[in-house]
Amino acid sequence: MMVKKRILTGDRPTGPLHLGHYVGSLVNRVKLQHEYDEFIIIADVQALTTNFDHPEKLSEDVYNVCLDYLACGIDPNLTTIFIQSHIPEIAELTIYYSMLVPISLLRYNPTIKTEAKQYGYDAKGMTYGFLGYPVSQAADITFCQAHLVPVGADQVPHIELTRKIVRRFNELYRSVLIEPEALVGDIPRLAGLDGNAKMSKSLGNCIYLSDSPEIVTKRVNMAVTDPARIHSKDPGHPEVCNVFAYQKAFNPKFSQELEENCRAGKIGCVPCKKTLIAAINELLEPLRARRKKYEADKDTINQILIQGTKRAQAEAKKTIALVRDAMKINYFK
Amino acid sequence: MMVKKRILTGDRPTGPLHLGHYVGSLVNRVKLQHEYDEFIIIADVQALTTNFDHPEKLSEDVYNVCLDYLACGIDPNLTTIFIQSHIPEIAELTIYYSMLVPISLLRYNPTIKTEAKQYGYDAKGMTYGFLGYPVSQAADITFCQAHLVPVGADQVPHIELTRKIVRRFNELYRSVLIEPEALVGDIPRLAGLDGNAKMSKSLGNCIYLSDSPEIVTKRVNMAVTDPARIHSKDPGHPEVCNVFAYQKAFNPKFSQELEENCRAGKIGCVPCKKTLIAAINELLEPLRARRKKYEADKDTINQILIQGTKRAQAEAKKTIALVRDAMKINYFK
Repeated sequence: MMVKKRILTGDRPTGPLHLGHYVGSLVNRVKLQHEYDEFIIIADVQALTTNFDHPEKLSEDVYNVCLDYLACGIDPNLTTIFIQSHIPEIAELTIYYSMLVPISLLRYNPTIKTEAKQYGYDAKGMTYGFLGYPVSQAADITFCQAHLVPVGADQVPHIELTRKIVRRFNELYRSVLIEPEALVGDIPRLAGLDGNAKMSKSLGNCIYLSDSPEIVTKRVNMAVTDPARIHSKDPGHPEVCNVFAYQKAFNPKFSQELEENCRAGKIGCVPCKKTLIAAINELLEPLRARRKKYEADKDTINQILIQGTKRAQAEAKKTIALVRDAMKINYFK
Repeated sequence: MMVKKRILTGDRPTGPLHLGHYVGSLVNRVKLQHEYDEFIIIADVQALTTNFDHPEKLSEDVYNVCLDYLACGIDPNLTTIFIQSHIPEIAELTIYYSMLVPISLLRYNPTIKTEAKQYGYDAKGMTYGFLGYPVSQAADITFCQAHLVPVGADQVPHIELTRKIVRRFNELYRSVLIEPEALVGDIPRLAGLDGNAKMSKSLGNCIYLSDSPEIVTKRVNMAVTDPARIHSKDPGHPEVCNVFAYQKAFNPKFSQELEENCRAGKIGCVPCKKTLIAAINELLEPLRARRKKYEADKDTINQILIQGTKRAQAEAKKTIALVRDAMKINYFK
């Protein structure tokens, strides 16, 4: 029997997942779960690095993210969904790894710099925990000895840091940790419907996987299109049109035809949006059906989280035993 | 029944304890164990912040530090001796606290700066773990809800940081953590016998609690005294004499008489050293007897460490449950 390679992926539970998450990673995870032993981490501790002052939302967010996964077609029989805060070994590994990482490697990390700016942290206001989240990510990946981590190109530096930590650990102590590889996908990035690069609830510029057909209609109708196009018969410029970017993602079969018609001034924005609304709703329909089924049975979701977390805990115990052995800090063995 | 206040103290296991440790803290701990519920942490993880590249010595050092404690008269029936690396909750608390501590508070901490210099770290070479050790110290103190931490004046900034973290946590979440107080003692600092402020094995300038009477004699005889005193009848300057500093610490009854005789040129360095050797050996004699008893029974020491660690683990479980409740991350409760 071929043992499947293990893959680690996940999200910070900071709110409901949207179409950007879907095309960016969820649809891929649904595929990958058949080829790999897939672990999905609900990174609630990492969510705390930026939300430490209002953790009361976490409980709801953890539940909802899991519901989003199940709605997408993540199969708990194939995939281990687990909660970061319930794996104390991740904290332990973070502490051990933190001895192997020079501060300079974190401070000059371009991804941390960008994200710090995004959260409005300057060098002074940044917390110790925020600076170290790539170290804790190394613990997330290695506690379950993942072979592969699917990421976008912008996340490759983090995986490189994990690989560096693993190599350092294996050299210093004993080779017990698996050096993970980035599974770099051409991850499509969807902008918000208003053209803003960031999708957020407060901007009202995104469609959540849990949105009703009515909301989908409303959101798409409010989407910004080619601003140069005033009359429906004006020739359009799909390359600057937000709605066209969505057509490519959600209506691939017709996107070429729509593009040609738009350029030729043969289709106006209103009917174009209508086809997009239909395509998104068609995509979301099976998700809504699965969501409805699971929503009716909150206990099942809790059980999925509990069982997944138990499986992850068992892997964590194996890894920490290897790590302690390698470091020779298992005094009573 | 009055419940005793809890006190937290401890050491990094980086080698055998010496007379500096004895007068600086051990003798005090032997006293305090009768008044307080004393917890002594063997901070092996913290030892790793500077010794991560040779952890193989830790096992031996942990055992020897415990043996030193027992030799000094620490009573395992009164005092809980435990091993830091075996309390995963300390790592968990460290992670949670790290979200509450701005980097700037660590980088500009004078004690960290001094210690970094001591270990030869510049800003670039310092590891993430080293920078954060005061955060992990806050976890050491609070996991067992210690009320008091006996420290020297130079360590007060660390306790202040712990208090800050506790206040921030209690304000943000719910008031579940005890804010510890520094029990600042006038901690005598012994210099090395060669006058060097730092005592170390490589300098051969200190007397270990485990040293034999012969080694004590040898070390004291090599001690540097008043350099201006060439002949035994020259008047001495006790205030610049290393041996006199030791006389004050270990021979307090006779130190005044010795001082007067030294100043008057009535006693030479050789007979003065002889009285010091006798005093130190008298002090160490009961330690040697207890050491001999315990050394013959390695299993007892292991059991003391195992039982103490178990007791600490039980306290850790109570505290982490309170912390998770307060942070609302106990989803399945």
